[in-house]
Amino acid sequence: MNILYIMFDQLRFDYLSCAGHPHLKTPHIDALAARGVRFTRAYVQSPTCGSSRMSSYTGRYPSSHGVQFNGYPLRVGEWTMGDHLRKAGMSCHLIGKTHMVADADGMQRLGLVPDSVIGVRQSECGFDPFVRDDGLWAEGPDGFYDSKRSPYNEYLKSKGYPGNNPWGDFANAGAIGEDIASGWFMVNADQPANIAEEDSETPWLTREAMRFIETVERRDDQPWCAHLSYIKPHWPYIVPAPYHDMYGPEHVLPAVRRDAERTDAHPVFAGMMNNQIGRAFSREDVRQKVIPAYMGLIKQADDQMGHLFGWLEATGRLKDTMIVLTSDHGDYLGDHWLGEKNLFHEPSIKVPLIVYDPRSAADATRGTICDALIESIDLLPTFLEIAGGEPAPHILEGRSLMPLLHGEPIDWRDHAIAEFDYATLPLSEELGLDPKDARLFMVVDDRWKFMHAEGGLRPMLFDLQNDPDELVDLAKTDAHQEVIDLMYNRLLAWGVRMSQRVTLSDAQIAARRGKSARKGILLGVYEAAEVDETLTEAYRRQVPKPGS
Amino acid sequence: MNILYIMFDQLRFDYLSCAGHPHLKTPHIDALAARGVRFTRAYVQSPTCGSSRMSSYTGRYPSSHGVQFNGYPLRVGEWTMGDHLRKAGMSCHLIGKTHMVADADGMQRLGLVPDSVIGVRQSECGFDPFVRDDGLWAEGPDGFYDSKRSPYNEYLKSKGYPGNNPWGDFANAGAIGEDIASGWFMVNADQPANIAEEDSETPWLTREAMRFIETVERRDDQPWCAHLSYIKPHWPYIVPAPYHDMYGPEHVLPAVRRDAERTDAHPVFAGMMNNQIGRAFSREDVRQKVIPAYMGLIKQADDQMGHLFGWLEATGRLKDTMIVLTSDHGDYLGDHWLGEKNLFHEPSIKVPLIVYDPRSAADATRGTICDALIESIDLLPTFLEIAGGEPAPHILEGRSLMPLLHGEPIDWRDHAIAEFDYATLPLSEELGLDPKDARLFMVVDDRWKFMHAEGGLRPMLFDLQNDPDELVDLAKTDAHQEVIDLMYNRLLAWGVRMSQRVTLSDAQIAARRGKSARKGILLGVYEAAEVDETLTEAYRRQVPKPGS
Repeated sequence: MNILYIMFDQLRFDYLSCAGHPHLKTPHIDALAARGVRFTRAYVQSPTCGSSRMSSYTGRYPSSHGVQFNGYPLRVGEWTMGDHLRKAGMSCHLIGKTHMVADADGMQRLGLVPDSVIGVRQSECGFDPFVRDDGLWAEGPDGFYDSKRSPYNEYLKSKGYPGNNPWGDFANAGAIGEDIASGWFMVNADQPANIAEEDSETPWLTREAMRFIETVERRDDQPWCAHLSYIKPHWPYIVPAPYHDMYGPEHVLPAVRRDAERTDAHPVFAGMMNNQIGRAFSREDVRQKVIPAYMGLIKQADDQMGHLFGWLEATGRLKDTMIVLTSDHGDYLGDHWLGEKNLFHEPSIKVPLIVYDPRSAADATRGTICDALIESIDLLPTFLEIAGGEPAPHILEGRSLMPLLHGEPIDWRDHAIAEFDYATLPLSEELGLDPKDARLFMVVDDRWKFMHAEGGLRPMLFDLQNDPDELVDLAKTDAHQEVIDLMYNRLLAWGVRMSQRVTLSDAQIAARRGKSARKGILLGVYEAAEVDETLTEAYRRQVPKPGS
Repeated sequence: MNILYIMFDQLRFDYLSCAGHPHLKTPHIDALAARGVRFTRAYVQSPTCGSSRMSSYTGRYPSSHGVQFNGYPLRVGEWTMGDHLRKAGMSCHLIGKTHMVADADGMQRLGLVPDSVIGVRQSECGFDPFVRDDGLWAEGPDGFYDSKRSPYNEYLKSKGYPGNNPWGDFANAGAIGEDIASGWFMVNADQPANIAEEDSETPWLTREAMRFIETVERRDDQPWCAHLSYIKPHWPYIVPAPYHDMYGPEHVLPAVRRDAERTDAHPVFAGMMNNQIGRAFSREDVRQKVIPAYMGLIKQADDQMGHLFGWLEATGRLKDTMIVLTSDHGDYLGDHWLGEKNLFHEPSIKVPLIVYDPRSAADATRGTICDALIESIDLLPTFLEIAGGEPAPHILEGRSLMPLLHGEPIDWRDHAIAEFDYATLPLSEELGLDPKDARLFMVVDDRWKFMHAEGGLRPMLFDLQNDPDELVDLAKTDAHQEVIDLMYNRLLAWGVRMSQRVTLSDAQIAARRGKSARKGILLGVYEAAEVDETLTEAYRRQVPKPGS
């Protein structure tokens, strides 16, 4: 069986019709949910791209792999999805975005050449890259944000789009007269992107995925896992016709926020509400420009899923391909006076997750929803089980979803953890924090969502049962100290977890017990007669003679 | 300045005359203390060789580097003492033991060849090995415990000692008639080892150290750090004449233990008291055989320190060589009904530590003792400061001792942490624990020593002020819950510490703050006029024309 692991970027959990959005219709993604299991409580391990993705790609918490924010290099040698799956006989490929930064210093220290097979895998987060394009070809006075080559820009140029960066000038900009109307300015979000729809990012990458599948099946004789990783609906918020005007202000849901949230707000929350992003998304005119474009990007994505799933079905591939559809984090879109992501409210840290398993063992759960607490680090153990590999709980910190997919009884986790490191945000400096102290931790269970902040800041607490919109921070008073204590106990247990004994499996550990005596290590032995004589043979001989 | 970093193996903190031993005279080590600072509360990060050493050699806690017991391979790419010091322009060499196991799987995955310069450093814990000999040439029905080559055995053979393993047959055995009297059987501890004193391990390694210093100074033009790492006084407990009968039962101090320790003992403590080692060391006849040999080994070591320090002085090298003398852990020797190490009582987890700094800045502290809480992970940051390197607190979890060595005022830590992983000991199976749950954590401060046990086991607590011998476990009752809560809070803070963001320094983090806008990442911008126009130039141009 193959695995098609689809990730959208910044797709909110509730912007799908199967998840209840009243205006945005996503029939193709809904159809996948009808064939599989839709998880309603899937949490990513960090609300920011790079960190969340490195957790998904390593099966480990940010504190374990060290990539706690965008642009932190993944340390050389860290086990990735590709390493685990290849060991189990499944190839592992990338089509799209990872936001991975290679550990160039570490590679140099180990003498790894970036363009060798091993070097490429170390640079590409363990994937064999069919196409890698992170889709952030931003440009400022200090140059491009991303200095790698852009296959997408190369594609656009091959299609005749002029200039050095058609990603920025066409795919992510409209045109007003002779001037570009850049998607970087949200006032332009209602413009159609100045590009043929089929040349925009989502359809291009969908075609690349189909090209990949045809290529790999012609070339290789082993099962594959393909990470089809879209750039959208991530900003810049702009979409080509006809998607640019499918939705209007009448389709924009009211922001989930309340004035009281601004009173005595947690300092990190307050800092984010008051920065440029928070201020912008607190404006209704901004929301009414941006959200219809965001919905258009999702509608386009759903149409592309229709093409892709139809093609897979028509070519018989749906029978032996597991499909996973998820996102790396959500988007506040003005809820809680915030834009972007970067905190732990549901619109930011919860993601859509649909898993379609074609095997008959999954028939019992088709079309069902599952409310179990899922962490994005659960995907890799699931894939490893599909590939037939040995479980690796000494490295992988998540759990295989297979029992949930097959409707088997299972004692599941009762809380989930996420983390956020804001040391590179100016906010950390405004709060006077050392880099190591600009870190947040979330613990969520069936009822409560708790946030611990390092650096001596107070926690946050929401009662998801009585306050599902997370509007009342109960940690402003001492009234819920017992719940807070419970959450700190969970954080303690998690904090001292075994996360770095990655070079020895549990089975190897167990096999070693008591074995050193068979290699002559005798401890606490006063006389030879105390232990089995086979163990002491080397120590009960005659003194060797010269020449022996 | 050069650094001579001397480590003994299993040398108790209190088996030196400068530390108050009433019978064992160690004038040469005492003389070093008289020239430097002797630390009275130096804790290693694990009471077992491999794990403690990997912490010293990486400057990181066992949970951070992953080597939580002997024989756990150190993950490929982990920064070591050699990596840090070489980057600062100081070479870093090994003469003796490391107990390091290379991550062969990881090296293979990265295509690292074991006999390349990089491969050797990965295999040898970052050191350039002048001599590596771990000194454990045990032999049983499943073969040798250590399958590497033994330079020491090669030396003995070159001197005419016959047989395949003169380490075992001569250096660590006496002779009774034609039979070897193996040091592996403690009944033989009062025999003289069947070897010329100058050929035994400690003098041999001392000569190798002098040979190294002459070689490196002839060959290289840069400062060096040499890790002179002795095998002794580690078991097998046997020593050549004249040291074998310098001490007798009249020099054996009474065991520090009390019957009450055996009542309602913590299950891990009880398991260790009741295993073969604990039972043996609870016997007075065993103690009276073993401890005089252990003292003889230390006396021999002190005499060798006399030769070495005399040679360094005579050759003028004492003027530009920092000397550190310490151990990797202690030895219970029957205290608390235990032998060996493996728990957190002072005889096991506390080590001798003497630091001699030849520079005038250290004159104020010469001959003083320092009671500050030291962790063995403090040594590498100290060495890095000597080498003139940039501090690396994002990797190194200890603190430079320099302010303490120079008598400067400093706000020092108020507690220290150690860990122990007993998953490979049969005890973990007897207690029904998963490998990940067979782990212990120590938190010690000026008054209390606390032990947390994973796997649902209760903690332990000692009041070091009123019970300096650690005979009364106060966690048997609820009477000290407040202290226990404080200790758990410290463990929580430590558990969530930032330990894996090893690819970016604090300075690199700080330098990134707010810089992405200068590479075109504009967040929350509605109209171009909201931000400095230099940031938006690329987004305010005309639509590129074909051919542009």
